[in-house]
Amino acid sequence: MASMMGTPATTRSLHGRLKHSINQTALRSYLAEFISTFLFVFVVIGSIMASRELLPDGTNTSDPSCLVAVAFANAFALSTAVYIFGASSSSDTTSASSSGAHVNPAVTFGLAVGGHISIPTALFYWIMQLLASSMACLLLRVATADHVVPTHAIAVEMTGFGASIIEGVTTFTLVYTIYAARDARKGPLSAIGPIAIGFVAGGNVLATGPFSGGSMNPACSFGSALVNGSFKNQAVYWVGPLIGGAMAGLFYDNVLFPVTSVQHSDSGINDGHGTSSNSGF
Amino acid sequence: MASMMGTPATTRSLHGRLKHSINQTALRSYLAEFISTFLFVFVVIGSIMASRELLPDGTNTSDPSCLVAVAFANAFALSTAVYIFGASSSSDTTSASSSGAHVNPAVTFGLAVGGHISIPTALFYWIMQLLASSMACLLLRVATADHVVPTHAIAVEMTGFGASIIEGVTTFTLVYTIYAARDARKGPLSAIGPIAIGFVAGGNVLATGPFSGGSMNPACSFGSALVNGSFKNQAVYWVGPLIGGAMAGLFYDNVLFPVTSVQHSDSGINDGHGTSSNSGF
Amino acid sequence: MASMMGTPATTRSLHGRLKHSINQTALRSYLAEFISTFLFVFVVIGSIMASRELLPDGTNTSDPSCLVAVAFANAFALSTAVYIFGASSSSDTTSASSSGAHVNPAVTFGLAVGGHISIPTALFYWIMQLLASSMACLLLRVATADHVVPTHAIAVEMTGFGASIIEGVTTFTLVYTIYAARDARKGPLSAIGPIAIGFVAGGNVLATGPFSGGSMNPACSFGSALVNGSFKNQAVYWVGPLIGGAMAGLFYDNVLFPVTSVQHSDSGINDGHGTSSNSGF
Amino acid sequence: MASMMGTPATTRSLHGRLKHSINQTALRSYLAEFISTFLFVFVVIGSIMASRELLPDGTNTSDPSCLVAVAFANAFALSTAVYIFGASSSSDTTSASSSGAHVNPAVTFGLAVGGHISIPTALFYWIMQLLASSMACLLLRVATADHVVPTHAIAVEMTGFGASIIEGVTTFTLVYTIYAARDARKGPLSAIGPIAIGFVAGGNVLATGPFSGGSMNPACSFGSALVNGSFKNQAVYWVGPLIGGAMAGLFYDNVLFPVTSVQHSDSGINDGHGTSSNSGF
Repeated sequence: MASMMGTPATTRSLHGRLKHSINQTALRSYLAEFISTFLFVFVVIGSIMASRELLPDGTNTSDPSCLVAVAFANAFALSTAVYIFGASSSSDTTSASSSGAHVNPAVTFGLAVGGHISIPTALFYWIMQLLASSMACLLLRVATADHVVPTHAIAVEMTGFGASIIEGVTTFTLVYTIYAARDARKGPLSAIGPIAIGFVAGGNVLATGPFSGGSMNPACSFGSALVNGSFKNQAVYWVGPLIGGAMAGLFYDNVLFPVTSVQHSDSGINDGHGTSSNSGF
Repeated sequence: MASMMGTPATTRSLHGRLKHSINQTALRSYLAEFISTFLFVFVVIGSIMASRELLPDGTNTSDPSCLVAVAFANAFALSTAVYIFGASSSSDTTSASSSGAHVNPAVTFGLAVGGHISIPTALFYWIMQLLASSMACLLLRVATADHVVPTHAIAVEMTGFGASIIEGVTTFTLVYTIYAARDARKGPLSAIGPIAIGFVAGGNVLATGPFSGGSMNPACSFGSALVNGSFKNQAVYWVGPLIGGAMAGLFYDNVLFPVTSVQHSDSGINDGHGTSSNSGF
Repeated sequence: MASMMGTPATTRSLHGRLKHSINQTALRSYLAEFISTFLFVFVVIGSIMASRELLPDGTNTSDPSCLVAVAFANAFALSTAVYIFGASSSSDTTSASSSGAHVNPAVTFGLAVGGHISIPTALFYWIMQLLASSMACLLLRVATADHVVPTHAIAVEMTGFGASIIEGVTTFTLVYTIYAARDARKGPLSAIGPIAIGFVAGGNVLATGPFSGGSMNPACSFGSALVNGSFKNQAVYWVGPLIGGAMAGLFYDNVLFPVTSVQHSDSGINDGHGTSSNSGF
Repeated sequence: MASMMGTPATTRSLHGRLKHSINQTALRSYLAEFISTFLFVFVVIGSIMASRELLPDGTNTSDPSCLVAVAFANAFALSTAVYIFGASSSSDTTSASSSGAHVNPAVTFGLAVGGHISIPTALFYWIMQLLASSMACLLLRVATADHVVPTHAIAVEMTGFGASIIEGVTTFTLVYTIYAARDARKGPLSAIGPIAIGFVAGGNVLATGPFSGGSMNPACSFGSALVNGSFKNQAVYWVGPLIGGAMAGLFYDNVLFPVTSVQHSDSGINDGHGTSSNSGF
């Protein structure tokens, strides 16, 4: 990390960016991202399967206590997934302490748009996320003796456009909260960043679960669709979250909380390959 | 911020107050308040719609698991809404770190009565809160293909006066908790301030949801009533919370925890336009 | 506070103790204890009333989602009640920051037995707790147009002795957790003390609610019984919690975590009138 | 503690290890482990009994709100059990503050494999955990007038192998989170370690409760099986968690977050008898 921080500006070429994305520290962060995403998708999709298993008829229905169960699975799993990531560098403790796993292509996209992570690194993150999600869903299906792996679905009376809007709005607030948790200016509040991130995910599921599915996460929707074998409405879970996540990042950095003072220049720096948060995040 | 702190006493005129309320930092805080309020109302009203959607009959009923869902939506959304606000100033990190969004006219009123926010700023906050709430409810209705947006309602056997008392008492404890979370004397406990604020809101909804509606928030009640088209009992959700919020502020600052020592004089100062918390909050 | 810390040892008479218990700082802490206890009992008893109100038959029954609602009301309300107390002294921030309201005669008793609070102060706390609980229950009854205020009850097949054992064990873990949260040796973990205290209360209710009522709090049981007019099994909610709370205090201080080093001598000091935590707690 | 840190390398014999495992500080930690495990098992098994007691038929069934209740009992009880442990040493506050009780033979095993706890100490922990779990289950049965103490069970359509896999995966994420919470490199995030540990346990129960039982804890499964008198599928709750816990420890320390810099050498040191975390953990 210390050596990366000293990288001169001349390495801002494709080669330099790839060097940032493929080294021992980076590979470790991809593996950590895999584990965090696996944990998240396993708990979220597992909770949908588990709560349905306990309903009397066992069919593809739901009730308000299922909604509570799935919302908490989201909150618990996302808080933990964010929390367990990192701790790989000691020089930027302030920044690293409030960061964490993405476990979500929309979050990675939102951070890439804001310049906090380079494009090659983002691509590796995406691959890890899709891989981890698919394997988590596959494990759930195999280990439970071929139970049906549920997919995110939208209410029958709604359009795909309406569902995309809802997924976009909820992903906006999710990525906005992640930006806030990463912000070194938060001071002591950084300590509860992972909890706030989990809370906003849980709240969004409580509000939108029966309408748009409450995914906010293209990887989670992709993995479950792949194992289920049905990609119906898959576009909803990519278009909405990616646009919402990107807008949140641009809004937070440029409109609401631009970095103005010198002493905070190393957090949220917008130089295109995100030196300070590249490896630690 | 630094320049505002140095504002001489001669600017305590209307013009000076307006200058505090209309500048780039202030405009950013209004926008941040809009986003936080939008998030809060979207999740709270959305969770009422979502949990009812999952009940077998789908009518205007509820059951204990709906109560749990809505209480958690309140707790999660308020914690997050408070958490994501701020981080705009670096000079008063201690004070700003424990503050956050109001998302609630009764909270703004309670802080204005205590002198922590100026009257013009409070009015801009109110406008943002009512606007954000109305737009969140409108979005919920449009995106869900014209589902009914529910309004806060009181139990049939209760009077409006009884409901106002309950809303006043719960708003009192909410604003009291917000004052405590803002208090720099809390030390390390400031880090969990947003969680405590969310918890008290969730607990109050669990206790009062079926009786008074468990709103504690005039903006939330106003927005849903506007989109629903029914302002029945709207007064209950203004009179109770505003009185309760104001009493909490006066009680906390003057009776229970008056500022006595010099080293804390910059937090909770009662000079009428709240220099220290004006822009950061 | 500073003057109290300097009180010479010769004032350890009844007069000296009363002087500790009746002064402006002490009176403020009694009022704060009243508010915290009122908040706690209002939310806990209110949540029992609210969740039953939503059951189809409306009779004196319950279901698992009611249990979840009441457990969370306990967790949320106790966390907040503990959190909002204090902040009245600036000299002992470390100790005060992790302390908080008792809202529970068994907690006050457990702290008095351990020497962390003087006997006169403890008596004033008890009076405040019983008064606040009774008024919260009375308000709930009046404001909800004479709904029945429920009392804690034990399962029909159980004996009062068995219920006392359960209440004693759960109060033991509650007071043990409060001692841990007050312990300055906890370091950064002190920041989440109020959350841990709320969590143990919520967990205990989830485990014992249908069996012993899950009270752990004589004041809460007394207030609801007074307004309900039925003191059946009231002894269960005093004997168990008081013995359990006292044992937890003695165990924590003397057996498990005795204060041995000099630098921690001002926390957990056992001199009979608890100078360091007297006013701040 | 200070004297233990200075223990020369020549005492790395069996005798030296036993001297580490049997002294006043160690005996206190065993007693603290007993109390934490008792609390955890009492709440978890009690919550299963309590939520079933409230179901209409009262038979050996479950529904989604029972799942929510048990998941929260796990989260609340594990957070608290981890939180209340410790505070026994003042010299290594950073390391000790983020550690806590194991309450779980798989966690103890995972830490022993990673070299953070010596084998003799681990054995004493195991004895305490099994003893505390059995006594908690026995108390629940006796105090509730011979209610049936439930055992963890696997879904009828699943194999023991599939259930072992699921228990192994969930224990992996649990122990991985515990390693992260113990990691001094976490900085300010260490303060919420116990909450993250509780959250991952709660999430895992939400995902796997109806399939594998959601135990992740051999002691909890053993104690309930002993008092219930049925050891059916007991192997599932030992094989899966022990393998999963060991793999998490090896993975975290050696693959993902190896200790490389000098300033962190006292955390996560791999010398076979875990000097720094031996007594404090």
